[in-house]
Amino acid sequence: MTKTFVVIGGDAAGMSAASKAKREDPEREVIVFEKGEWVSYAACGMPYYVKGEVDDLDDLVTVTPEEFREERDVDLHTGTEVVDINSEAQTVTVETGDETYEQPYDDLLVATGASAIEPPFDGLGLEGVFTIHDMVEADAIENYVTDRDPETAAIVGGGYVGIEMAEALSAHGVDVHLYEMLPHILQPFGEAVAEVVEEHLREQGVELHLETAVSGFVGDERVEAVELEDETVAADVAIVGVGVAPNTDLAEEAGIELGPTGAIATDEYGRTNDENVYAAGDNAEATHVVTGESDHVPLALTANRAGRAIGQTITGAPTPTGGTAGTAIVKAFDLGAARTGIIDEDRAREAGFDPVSVTISASTRAHYYPDGAELTVTLVADRESGELLGGTVVGREGTKRIDTVATALTADMTVTELQNADLAYAPPFSPVWDPILTAAKVLAGKLE
Amino acid sequence: MTKTFVVIGGDAAGMSAASKAKREDPEREVIVFEKGEWVSYAACGMPYYVKGEVDDLDDLVTVTPEEFREERDVDLHTGTEVVDINSEAQTVTVETGDETYEQPYDDLLVATGASAIEPPFDGLGLEGVFTIHDMVEADAIENYVTDRDPETAAIVGGGYVGIEMAEALSAHGVDVHLYEMLPHILQPFGEAVAEVVEEHLREQGVELHLETAVSGFVGDERVEAVELEDETVAADVAIVGVGVAPNTDLAEEAGIELGPTGAIATDEYGRTNDENVYAAGDNAEATHVVTGESDHVPLALTANRAGRAIGQTITGAPTPTGGTAGTAIVKAFDLGAARTGIIDEDRAREAGFDPVSVTISASTRAHYYPDGAELTVTLVADRESGELLGGTVVGREGTKRIDTVATALTADMTVTELQNADLAYAPPFSPVWDPILTAAKVLAGKLE
Repeated sequence: MTKTFVVIGGDAAGMSAASKAKREDPEREVIVFEKGEWVSYAACGMPYYVKGEVDDLDDLVTVTPEEFREERDVDLHTGTEVVDINSEAQTVTVETGDETYEQPYDDLLVATGASAIEPPFDGLGLEGVFTIHDMVEADAIENYVTDRDPETAAIVGGGYVGIEMAEALSAHGVDVHLYEMLPHILQPFGEAVAEVVEEHLREQGVELHLETAVSGFVGDERVEAVELEDETVAADVAIVGVGVAPNTDLAEEAGIELGPTGAIATDEYGRTNDENVYAAGDNAEATHVVTGESDHVPLALTANRAGRAIGQTITGAPTPTGGTAGTAIVKAFDLGAARTGIIDEDRAREAGFDPVSVTISASTRAHYYPDGAELTVTLVADRESGELLGGTVVGREGTKRIDTVATALTADMTVTELQNADLAYAPPFSPVWDPILTAAKVLAGKLE
Repeated sequence: MTKTFVVIGGDAAGMSAASKAKREDPEREVIVFEKGEWVSYAACGMPYYVKGEVDDLDDLVTVTPEEFREERDVDLHTGTEVVDINSEAQTVTVETGDETYEQPYDDLLVATGASAIEPPFDGLGLEGVFTIHDMVEADAIENYVTDRDPETAAIVGGGYVGIEMAEALSAHGVDVHLYEMLPHILQPFGEAVAEVVEEHLREQGVELHLETAVSGFVGDERVEAVELEDETVAADVAIVGVGVAPNTDLAEEAGIELGPTGAIATDEYGRTNDENVYAAGDNAEATHVVTGESDHVPLALTANRAGRAIGQTITGAPTPTGGTAGTAIVKAFDLGAARTGIIDEDRAREAGFDPVSVTISASTRAHYYPDGAELTVTLVADRESGELLGGTVVGREGTKRIDTVATALTADMTVTELQNADLAYAPPFSPVWDPILTAAKVLAGKLE
């Protein structure tokens, strides 16, 4: 009898799993329910659509619904919401606009993603106040900025979204104010990165308000200002980007367990506490390669990889979803900033390490070769074992070098082993000692 | 009693060792003999001096003789040649212009480097025929090109030097002919890279003569043409870059053993068969991280790292010199080409592997993000163990991604482990699956 694989959610994890399952076992029935109209889209590309570097929202779609249906033979239902999982009966309750029905499954993947957190601000409902959480919202921001030609913008939150939207709105000539509650932006990247990025944002004309809590927005129908503790600052458009929370309600109601991070707990194959139910993507936990503990890192590669692995596992080839190192990279105007692993010393200590770190700056190219840029590299290691725990990189070029550190973390390398990695050198590409190696050398010296 | 560390050769390995030894043990007497006038210079930068991107040969010097003497307190003798090693007496015979004397040592480092191979060509002595093997020669080429304004150049050898000099001479408006005996240029990079680079060189106006043996040069005092088997092609300047050979005569005469590659054999600490004599740099072997066998990879990072380690070892902290993966990167006009590990399938089989390889092309950025470039990635793995053996990368940007592969080789990763590395993604920097991961994914599929 044909087995049925049902997927809830049609973005990275869901569509990767559906495509892979169908490719591995063309006989399998593979059904995807997506409550919106967009599937397999690059949410990370939305700031560049708003900026105007991507012409059409459709360009952000990797595979279209038609391609999934016709070329990949996936039974994809958009505009269709799963409102209930009945794990004993192994069915899901499906609502289209017109009808409600039960869909049986043999294997189920919950890939419901995450949603932008809406903080308890006054005036969130005003026209011109946006959170950026889906393609519809990206389109609305782009339209608003184009139609209303705002003079000033309030961006709340100094994470990826805030920084990318600061760049996007500046490109439209908008005066951008960026509000961050903490002492520094880009908290997961650590201070060494934050300070470099903050200086660059200021150079680019972004008005940074650090350690500044926003309480809400004011205006008459349309947003006119942002309210702080003791002042009100004009804002013709506002974007709230204070993080995302996993969409777990549907799973929780069905008795599927959440982990310590609040996302759905899974084993190394992405299986939940219900053996026929998997979870992957921004709603699920992953194992951190450094701590070995559960973590919630809602990023695209983790989602794609886990989805693909689950597609293999349920069709007969058990495949671990792969750990996460929390690797991330962000563009801030002319800078790149990247991180991987455990940077925060408190977090390292909680995980049982005795962290030692160094920060160095070095050129991306030989000192005599034209157009090199300064790269600031931080590496963190455990004092006793010498095990590498994490790192960051920031500069005008060469920030993909974080991949060297991420690979070293995946391989459980020590700082000394990383220091001995045979990295590529030629004057146009690197100094003899790549900045990552220089940082490793200095850190190894500190560990002696 | 103060111990004496004598170093023969004042470039990367020698000066790294001398500096490190003196820093670790300021009481130690550290004496360096360099037969030329230049020390600690970046030979890899010479093509960019000839091209005109580096204004002054002095810019290629990392640390000046004065800095070594005054700031690092190294007893550096330039213009001074060691003509004999007397290993029983533990002395070296030193010739300055004026005198010959015996210098005793406790530890000796032979860091005599390598020399450009001079093939048995007719007319090598003609004016305008150069091998590029030291700073003096680089200066001579630059002067010749500037003074004589040659119309056509013959470059013999399609390795790094040949390709970099093709770019350098083209920048002066010279018509460049590049002669390569083998079917492809850049032999150690494999065919997938060579084909991309060859096409690019042709686009840039370089006339490639593959499978073409040069027999010599003709001219009256000054070079006028290059002689091939059945034709003679005009050439106003000629550069021969057919590889380098380790300078081992001095060591051999003292009974120091060479390894299978013809370079000086060493243990993991850089020690030769004579326990008080070390060797490092372009004249010494290193252990290949993939095969575990001796290899001769005359490159700058290997030399620097080995020298530094020996400086630590002889001052009391035994430090392995680190293996080599044969990682290399070269710029060819607007392209970068990089390699690491074992690429050649015959060589892999000789080392006991059953090689399987894939070549993929993917964008360096998200498909919708502007200005991405195509990156061609080759990965090679052992069929049974899945162990990664090597890889290459070629494209207009992002070729430092080879470091991810090099790090994976240093860590003995399998293809599946590499596929699960948590590399950095954001649209301006990478597709969700970095090209290296895509290649690993395809190769892992082929190994199943």
